[in-house]
Amino acid sequence: MSSFDHTKYRPFEPVAIENRTWPDQEITTAPIWASVDLRDGNQALVEPMTVDQKKEFFKLLVDVGFKEIEVGFPAASQLDFDFVRWLVEEDQVPDDVYIQVLTQARPELIERTYESLKGAKKAVVHVYNSTSKTQREQVFRLGKDGIKEIAVKGAQCVKEHAAKHPETEWVFQYSPESFTGTETDFAVEVCDAVIDVWQPTPENKCIINLPATVEVTTPNRFADQIEYFCRKVKNRDSIIVSLHTHNDRGCGVAAAELGLMAGADRIEGTLLGNGERTGNMCVVTMAMNMYSQGVNPELNFADMDRVISVVQSCTQLPVHPRHAYAGELVFTAFSGSHQDAIKKCLANQTDDKPWDVAYLPIDPRDIGRSYQEVIRVNSQSGKGGVAFALEQEYGLALPRWLQVELSPIVQRFSEEDGGVIEAADMKRLFEENFMTASAPYALGNYELSKKDRDSVTAELTHKDGNISVQGEGNGALSAFTSALSEQFNIRVDIVQYQEHALTVGSDSQAIAYIQANIDGERYNGVAIDNDIVSASIQAVLATVNQKVSASEQANVA
Amino acid sequence: MSSFDHTKYRPFEPVAIENRTWPDQEITTAPIWASVDLRDGNQALVEPMTVDQKKEFFKLLVDVGFKEIEVGFPAASQLDFDFVRWLVEEDQVPDDVYIQVLTQARPELIERTYESLKGAKKAVVHVYNSTSKTQREQVFRLGKDGIKEIAVKGAQCVKEHAAKHPETEWVFQYSPESFTGTETDFAVEVCDAVIDVWQPTPENKCIINLPATVEVTTPNRFADQIEYFCRKVKNRDSIIVSLHTHNDRGCGVAAAELGLMAGADRIEGTLLGNGERTGNMCVVTMAMNMYSQGVNPELNFADMDRVISVVQSCTQLPVHPRHAYAGELVFTAFSGSHQDAIKKCLANQTDDKPWDVAYLPIDPRDIGRSYQEVIRVNSQSGKGGVAFALEQEYGLALPRWLQVELSPIVQRFSEEDGGVIEAADMKRLFEENFMTASAPYALGNYELSKKDRDSVTAELTHKDGNISVQGEGNGALSAFTSALSEQFNIRVDIVQYQEHALTVGSDSQAIAYIQANIDGERYNGVAIDNDIVSASIQAVLATVNQKVSASEQANVA
Repeated sequence: MSSFDHTKYRPFEPVAIENRTWPDQEITTAPIWASVDLRDGNQALVEPMTVDQKKEFFKLLVDVGFKEIEVGFPAASQLDFDFVRWLVEEDQVPDDVYIQVLTQARPELIERTYESLKGAKKAVVHVYNSTSKTQREQVFRLGKDGIKEIAVKGAQCVKEHAAKHPETEWVFQYSPESFTGTETDFAVEVCDAVIDVWQPTPENKCIINLPATVEVTTPNRFADQIEYFCRKVKNRDSIIVSLHTHNDRGCGVAAAELGLMAGADRIEGTLLGNGERTGNMCVVTMAMNMYSQGVNPELNFADMDRVISVVQSCTQLPVHPRHAYAGELVFTAFSGSHQDAIKKCLANQTDDKPWDVAYLPIDPRDIGRSYQEVIRVNSQSGKGGVAFALEQEYGLALPRWLQVELSPIVQRFSEEDGGVIEAADMKRLFEENFMTASAPYALGNYELSKKDRDSVTAELTHKDGNISVQGEGNGALSAFTSALSEQFNIRVDIVQYQEHALTVGSDSQAIAYIQANIDGERYNGVAIDNDIVSASIQAVLATVNQKVSASEQANVA
Repeated sequence: MSSFDHTKYRPFEPVAIENRTWPDQEITTAPIWASVDLRDGNQALVEPMTVDQKKEFFKLLVDVGFKEIEVGFPAASQLDFDFVRWLVEEDQVPDDVYIQVLTQARPELIERTYESLKGAKKAVVHVYNSTSKTQREQVFRLGKDGIKEIAVKGAQCVKEHAAKHPETEWVFQYSPESFTGTETDFAVEVCDAVIDVWQPTPENKCIINLPATVEVTTPNRFADQIEYFCRKVKNRDSIIVSLHTHNDRGCGVAAAELGLMAGADRIEGTLLGNGERTGNMCVVTMAMNMYSQGVNPELNFADMDRVISVVQSCTQLPVHPRHAYAGELVFTAFSGSHQDAIKKCLANQTDDKPWDVAYLPIDPRDIGRSYQEVIRVNSQSGKGGVAFALEQEYGLALPRWLQVELSPIVQRFSEEDGGVIEAADMKRLFEENFMTASAPYALGNYELSKKDRDSVTAELTHKDGNISVQGEGNGALSAFTSALSEQFNIRVDIVQYQEHALTVGSDSQAIAYIQANIDGERYNGVAIDNDIVSASIQAVLATVNQKVSASEQANVA
């Protein structure tokens, strides 16, 4: 068995700082944001992204508004090298965006790094070596001078290669890796030595990035380190101080915020916090924190569903239902007193007044969401609600995100009807609203084929005549959504998917639940079939039928 | 479309504090911990817990070491009322544990609250009302005096009822709800008025709980509020200042830590951070943060798998793979340089030295985990690894947690074999290690029945003769694990479960993946069958077969 013994750990040794000023600072402007999704995030994935996934993710980062994007570690990975070449050769980088690449401070890697960047318009070359006591003593077995020499030689090499390619606008970045485990004075010493090599000026700055590679202390102690560093480092006006925090203690956003108050200019992080171990600082959270205080975050998260969809599909990691701003439950109120307070505040809220609604730090509509009240039918009996009744009576194990969608529909019915709702009513409402795979279009025969990509050809029956649709994608559902998108001239993205067996035995049926974002709005579809693939496809069709019906009605009216 | 406009928000107005001292404090002892899982956590669930789930969760909280446990809101919920009565009447509360109940400051609710507690040995009565500007003006439409009067009357009523039941050791707790949205001076004024009623002494303290009901600012500003409050509130030596933080800005742990430095004595939170919207502060993270600094957290998380299993099954919420200390990926290294550094440090680490390993803030074994290196077969080709090959060649879509288990097995084979690994080798290793449902025991006929609980009777075939096992549980898998636990005198808990279709069409097969914790160790089982139920059951049996084989071999040796 494990032994639980705190005495085997030593406390962090804080830096001695006098008259700290950061606790009196406020964040009133956005930092320079740098995304490391395609490098630090990607290297921590069980399945690293394919080139296609990197392309899709890069496009998202540009659209959200990043101007500095770390795209890979080209000297360590052929895939990363190829991706950088694609960005450069296919002219995929907007004129105001810097692509950034990471390299260790070793000549052969630096050379290969510059090869990958040949012809780039703007690039940040990010060189690093580990400076922490643990790494010096146990991994590199070098003294402080030896570690500093690695940094200086790397800096020289970076500078020499850059001089050979004046057609590119170069920015140099150095990271003393494991900064938080490094004596702060030594970190200053190493960075000063690198700055001596690069000779930055206020007009031509270099970036000094201070990574909390591992989060080792509370955010205020980290901020002390940053303020101390900013006071001591040379040529402060010629360098951009950048932070790169992780969540080992669950405080990566707090550390970045307090570090910004302490003098940093630039923040590296990832969308929704992917990254080594506990992940990097979540840029969505930090940017939306500024937004909620009236500060322009200089990043746009109006289409949060797209952010979630791309991040989830590229990282294969879920977004927790309680993730700040993005989770599926964060704008939901279950408690009667919360619902009551929100209702009263919303009634008072007008466009000309600042947002002031109890329990809702931001207006969910700003990021394409809606506030949801969840009623619990018979909650006083302790048999909570709609989902419980549907599962007990009909074996329908609704995923939580669909329960949240069904609840207000049942609630409205209950208010109109004025009585107690029976399980049969709930089932009828469920079927009417979500099981819409039979009209206007129904699924006929179809063919699936899987080679490099999946392709689907499907017949759709309609009262006015049948049509055939065709599409390709990564997987059958993706191929089918692409077929429907093209046929109906809409954009269909699957946000949620779940399927479970409905009955047991050889004639078992499966039920598929789909949530799709169609042209920016959310639709939910459900279908039952003996075949799990057919059930999934019909569930997608159900969402599109709802969209098509709504459009047809709008046209008639 | 949504409009993304930061100008509709107002910034938080910080409290004016001079000579703040909290940034120089260090956390050297644990706070008084109070769990609110069964109240704040529970009220935010789509499906609130059943009484059985509350019982199981309560037992976990006691075993982990909580001495103050908020068990419900008995005046608002019959289920909560019944649960409190069960705790009292069945003598389920250890002598050193306080049960705590929440009530609004209304006489009829307070009366009902005391009814629920009749006969309790030790109890905290927690009374609250909203004091924020938003709630005063928009929800209650009362001035400051009216709001204060609600608090005072509630406090009086609480005190009067307590006097009638001297057999119980009472502690009173007051919360100015939405404290973070309340002018701090007014919060002091209301709390002072409550303190005047309760007349606490240093020997007989009351609790004043300051909720960040909604997180509205950075953790340092929250700490300023707490230090300011602690300076101004009357009878500071006679009150326990408690904090209750939420994660609306993703900083609930940081706020609690800085608030503790600012003078608080007590922390309310939940295991793994369940709670309204973005959730409460995660007690696991904060306690383990202390632990990693050599501070005794006074809570024991040696059996982290049990914590995860109970929390997940009771809340129906996932634990994110990157959740600090608890997530499935937080002790995994994918990058070669990280793996190299960890390997070198682990080689130096001995029991007599403080823990000092790069990239691992704590020894994973302390909480029943192990460090995992994940190798990527052919990662240089960009077609990352084992999982990719198995999926491409055989259609096996391994869940991430199983990829992480398979990877080191493939790695060992690769090191022994010295050559490039073929997909067929990987499949064989996968089958040998996980698809172990045929020996020593194989699944024969079985019967499932579902009434109040599920029960299963199954025949297991064995070369020395068949046996029959029987069990009950919530669901077929739970019933089957209980049957196996009894038969083999082991404890089997399912940690992970996933199932997917392996082939398409009418003769489709399903593959089930199970991770189980058996007597504190992790086992992984996989099975394929035409029937999804049978596949799941066999996957469980596969894990138990591995355990039974290991025991048999140990006995032979």
